[in-house]
Parts: sequence; C-alpha cells; structure tokens
Amino acid sequence: MSKTIAINAGSSSLKWQLYQMPEETVLAKGIVERIGLDDAVSTVKFDGRSESQTLPIKDHIVAVKLLLEDLKRFAIISDFAEITGVGHRVVAGGEIFKSSVLIDDEALRQIEELSSLAPLHNPANAAGIRAFKEILPDITSVAVFDTAFHTTMPEVAYRYPMADKYYTDYQVRKYGAHGTSHYYVSQQAAEMLGKPLEELKLITAHIGNGVSLTAINGGKSVDTSMGFTPLAGPMMGTRTGDIDPAIIPYLVENVPELENAADVVNVLNKESGILGVSGLTNDMRDLEAAMAEGDEKAQLAFDMFADRLKKFIGQYMAVLNGADALVFTAGIGENDTLLREKIVSELSWFGMDIDPAKNVFGNSGVISTDAAKVKVLVVPTDEELVIARDVEALKA
Amino acid sequence: MSKTIAINAGSSSLKWQLYQMPEETVLAKGIVERIGLDDAVSTVKFDGRSESQTLPIKDHIVAVKLLLEDLKRFAIISDFAEITGVGHRVVAGGEIFKSSVLIDDEALRQIEELSSLAPLHNPANAAGIRAFKEILPDITSVAVFDTAFHTTMPEVAYRYPMADKYYTDYQVRKYGAHGTSHYYVSQQAAEMLGKPLEELKLITAHIGNGVSLTAINGGKSVDTSMGFTPLAGPMMGTRTGDIDPAIIPYLVENVPELENAADVVNVLNKESGILGVSGLTNDMRDLEAAMAEGDEKAQLAFDMFADRLKKFIGQYMAVLNGADALVFTAGIGENDTLLREKIVSELSWFGMDIDPAKNVFGNSGVISTDAAKVKVLVVPTDEELVIARDVEALKA
Repeated sequence: MSKTIAINAGSSSLKWQLYQMPEETVLAKGIVERIGLDDAVSTVKFDGRSESQTLPIKDHIVAVKLLLEDLKRFAIISDFAEITGVGHRVVAGGEIFKSSVLIDDEALRQIEELSSLAPLHNPANAAGIRAFKEILPDITSVAVFDTAFHTTMPEVAYRYPMADKYYTDYQVRKYGAHGTSHYYVSQQAAEMLGKPLEELKLITAHIGNGVSLTAINGGKSVDTSMGFTPLAGPMMGTRTGDIDPAIIPYLVENVPELENAADVVNVLNKESGILGVSGLTNDMRDLEAAMAEGDEKAQLAFDMFADRLKKFIGQYMAVLNGADALVFTAGIGENDTLLREKIVSELSWFGMDIDPAKNVFGNSGVISTDAAKVKVLVVPTDEELVIARDVEALKA
Repeated sequence: MSKTIAINAGSSSLKWQLYQMPEETVLAKGIVERIGLDDAVSTVKFDGRSESQTLPIKDHIVAVKLLLEDLKRFAIISDFAEITGVGHRVVAGGEIFKSSVLIDDEALRQIEELSSLAPLHNPANAAGIRAFKEILPDITSVAVFDTAFHTTMPEVAYRYPMADKYYTDYQVRKYGAHGTSHYYVSQQAAEMLGKPLEELKLITAHIGNGVSLTAINGGKSVDTSMGFTPLAGPMMGTRTGDIDPAIIPYLVENVPELENAADVVNVLNKESGILGVSGLTNDMRDLEAAMAEGDEKAQLAFDMFADRLKKFIGQYMAVLNGADALVFTAGIGENDTLLREKIVSELSWFGMDIDPAKNVFGNSGVISTDAAKVKVLVVPTDEELVIARDVEALKA
C-alpha cells in the first residue's frame, strides 16, 4: 500500500491529486490558489466532500506543508510516511528530457535552466519540486514533461523555416505541449478500437481552454500544433493560435497602447481567441448559450473555432497520409457535442460520420457510425494518472 | 487593332508586357530595373531579341517615357496612339476593390490610401499609374488588384481570432494575394477538366518565390494562405510563412542584432524559408542540384517546403470537404517535377495519384492517372493576360 501524489504547480497555484497505487484509486484532490497573497485559498476534495479555507500562504513551501497537513487533518492519511512518491508536471523539457525522470540535483538544475523556454511555468514547477524535496526529502520524486511525448517528431516537423542559428544558438523549434494527454488518450483509443497502437494512425485533439492537436503514427508523435510556445496552433479560448506574424510589428506601429512585440503577444495570448471574437467569454458553455440567443459575435467565434480545428485535422490527415481515427479529449473535446457534430459533419468527404445516438453528453468511446472509414472517438484524458503511473514505474 | 500594356510596378522596377488585343498576342515585354539610380537598366524583349541599356533613370515617369520610346525605337509601335489601354497590377485593394476598375482620381486616391496595408507596393503601383496618366492621359487606365479575387472569402476565413477593434479600427484581416493567378488557373483548370467552374472544388497552389494556396468553391475563393501580408502561409523562398507568433518577442529579447518586431519580421521575410534553412539559395534549381550532391541542409529545406505545402493542401481539403482537383502553377509549381511527385505521392490516401509519364518538365494539363479520385493539374499562370483582358472588358 503506497500513496503517490501528482503535482501541477503554477506561478501562484498548486494543483494536486493523491492516488492509492498501484490500484490507481483517487483518494483526494485539491488546489491551492493565490499563493503569495494574504487571502490564498486551499481546497481539498475527498469522499464527496469539498473543504476550503482562506489564509495567508507565503510561497510554494507553505502551500505544500498546508496540503500535507490537510491530508492528515481530514484523516486521508495518518502519517506522511504513507506517501512514497510525488510526480511533478513540468512544462518545458526542451531537447534534454525525452521521458519522465527521477529528479536529482542535476535534473532540477536543468529544469530551472529550461525556464527560458517557459518563463512562467518552469520556475513554478521547480518551486513545487523544491517544496516537496524540503518537506519529504526521501520519497521518490519524478518529473513528467509536457513536451517529452513530442520529442519523437522528425526534424522536418519541429524545425521552423529559419536559419540554423536560431535553432542551434537560441533553441527556437517546435516543442509542443499537452504531451501526457496526447499520450494517454492515444493509448486509450487503441484499446477502445481493439487494435495495437503500433498499427494505428491517430489524430488526437486536446480541446480545452488551451488547444493542441497531434498526429500520432504507431504511437509516436510525428507533428503537433503547439510550437515554440503554447500560443501556436488553432484558435483557443483566449489565444489567437497561428496568425500572420507580420501583424505584430504592424500593431506595434499603429496601436498606441501596444508599445512592443511583448505587448502584442500578451494580447494574442490573453485577450484573443473565443474571448476576443465574441467579446463575451472564453467559456464554451457561455458562448453556446449566447449563440442560442442569436448573438452573432458568439456565433462567429464558434464558427471560427471549428474552422481552425477542422484545418488542423485536414493538415494531420495530410501529414499521416490518412488516419484511422480522430480522438476528441479535454474539457471542450469531451463535452461539447455541438462542436464535434459541426466539425465531423463538415469532414464527411474524409469518411468521417458521427452517430447522433453516440454523440451525447457524458458518453465516451467510439461516436462514429460503424460504416465510418475514419473512426471518431471521445476519450476522457487523465494527465494526473499518467504522472502517478510514471512515479510507480520509476520506483522500481 | 488596339494595343494594351500590362504594368507591374515595384518600388525600383517596372515590368511591362504589350499585347495586341483582342487577339491576345504578346508583341513585346520588358523590365526597367534600378529606378532611381544612375545605372538603371531597361530591357526590351521582342521577336526573339533582347535589348538592354544602362542609363540613369530618375523615377517612374522617366521609366515609362523610356519604355514607350523604346517601343517606337524598335518599331514595335509606330505611334503612341496605337496604345489604347493600360492595366496596372495593384497589390492591396483592401475591402474597397472587389474587382478591376477604371482609374479615376478617386480610385487613385483610394489606392494611395491603402498604402498602409502594402507600404512597399501600393505607392509604387500608384507611381506607375501617375506616370502613365501624365504621358498618355487619354487611354483607358485600369487597376487590377491582387486581392480582389479573395474578397469572396467568408468572414470565418478572413477574420483573425482577435477582438473586433483590430479589424474595424486597424483593418487587420486576411486579404490574400496572387488573386489574378488563382483566378486565371482556376478557369484554365475547369476548361482542361471539361467541367463548368461553378461545379468544381479546386485547390490552386501558386508556388513561386512567393507561395500561396487557395481553396476555390464554384469559382469563388473561400480561403487562401496569404494573410494580412504576404508573409503568411506555407514556407517560401525567403519567407518562413506561418510560425508561432511568440517567437518574435523572444527573438527581440534574446538576439542582440534584432532590436524590435520589425527587425525580426524582416528576417522572417527575407532571410528565412528555403534560403534560411539551406543556408545556400532560395532558387529551387540550385537547391535540388545541392540535394543531388548530398547536401543535408538543402534536403531538409526541400522536405520542409514540401511538408508545409502538403499541410495546406490537407487544410483546404478540409475547408472544401473534398476537392475535385489540385492545381500547380507559377515558377516552381509549373516546373518542379520532383516536388510535385513528392507531395502527391505522400497524399495517396486522398485519392491523388500522379502519372509519371505526364509529370515531366514542359508538360501541362492533367498529370494524374485516369483512376485518380482527385485530379492533379499543371497550369501555366498568366497574370499579365488577366490584366490585359480586364482592360479590354472595361473599355466597352
């Protein structure tokens, strides 16, 4: 009986999920938010209960101490020694980390060095790692990288059409993201299809507030839509995705409040996408409610969102020279029946055909008709489980 | 018997082609280069001859005077009165010009106002227009816009996923380019396929040093790869095409010689693409010669170029929900058998199948096998002819 905790640390938050392993039972989960402020909030969910408290939390070490004390306070564990492993999500693994690793001093140093590639995320991930190292120094500590699954991409896919030096001296290349999600749902999809993953060509569409699609050939990522950063790819909740890069200097020159490229990219990341076009929301449920009331901008945002997704599906059909299945996952991908219906119905030429009886809220698995040449699946993702499993695997 | 001249004016050059209309016979063509310098060069080609002279040419007016004098000097015309029409290529027509127009003072003013959208091109186009207005004030003067063919795009395609104000206040949207080429080859393709254009779904791939692809449904452009500027789309001779926009502020911050977004976009436009990746050339013939000698960077550049084209073909297969034909045109598209073979062979799942006996240098028309579900064509483009025809059409 051992317990493993999966950690996803942000700059001011720390999400966690505690597993009984190897049973893979979720014992509890929670989030500490507003770290660094006097009114930080820690929430713990277990046994159908949700307990929150508001208090000052100085830093990630205090946050980790608090969540561990909470586990005892709510009798989820009786002793810290029950926790034998911790897995940390790390956003940028660069070209160094091609799989999950045990975190020693050298690995932690490298994770911190890779902060130039993910300046908002890797320092937070490292803070989470340090906090656990300080409080529970003897447990198995594993880093699970968002980028690792994509390190199999061929050079033709990961290089940008720029001179060598930008790659060799400045590390500018496509790294991708959501790797654990694409990996997990591709494995689940193979099981649902009853075929070995090695024999399948899949397009996985992780559609949450962030969106990425991956072309997977025989279980290996061969192309993905996020790029050097998570701004790239199709339109997202608040991000533009790919746009003509020349728009940036044009806006710097013409928009008084945008003084430099960083200002513009901030707008492209945070004030654009569904939120920008609709002028209302980046929440798909609110958007579709507005559409139902005839809001034209909400409709345009929805139609553009579907259009950009469709184009990436077409791209990856070309990259794979045909695919066996399209897999929808993550918050929107798993739940938005309207979006799935729109996209798939507009790709009928490709031999995709949705079964309306299966494309219903709450259903997962194959949602295409038996006759469909390209299967369509809904697969709930579980990135925390991948993290917990990787901790187990590296304990041995 | 009337003669019409088609003009393509750049900031320091003026390309021209003289037609006998309505026979559409090319009587002569030429280019004035290095306008503004003391060693400008004017070249005239006619009757299999090519005549060049080097001399100071102050501005576009002098260039136009020179080329007209040359037409007399070489007895191509005996009197200026024989020239009854001039058609000017104009790069940016914005949302104002949805087709070719007779140029009156108001149109010329609007063309100059649209310079914010094409700061290098529209002022040059306007200079060419003014030069002809001054020297031959009474002939029919027509503007033919690179963007006009794309004004049929639906909002879902031409809008970027950004807040309204960037579109309404700053005119940031997709305009596209190479419109006359996409228009011309789509018409030719319909003829070659023996079907009405109205019933066809086509993907036209204009592949020269600049590259753009267009999804054409029933003769109308419904999406195209160039965007707000000609930087967007697949990889090109010296341009990156679409890349993660967040690369721009990263390079501004990290590369000492790139001080701002405009510096970076200059690199993305002029030092990237095939030239950047190969480190050798942006000429496809030189690139393929280097590949034949085993140059790995040249091979990578070629493979990336094909990859990005293939992805756009896949995108537009999705946008059109299947297409009847793929059309290759322009310098590389018309002549590069190796590139066409690579792209089409990697899209076999789509029902594309090239006939090696037809995919030979110098051949045009359908180059796919009879069994191919999606036809593949090579169609030589002729933008100048479209210009001359539009002048004729507006004379009536």
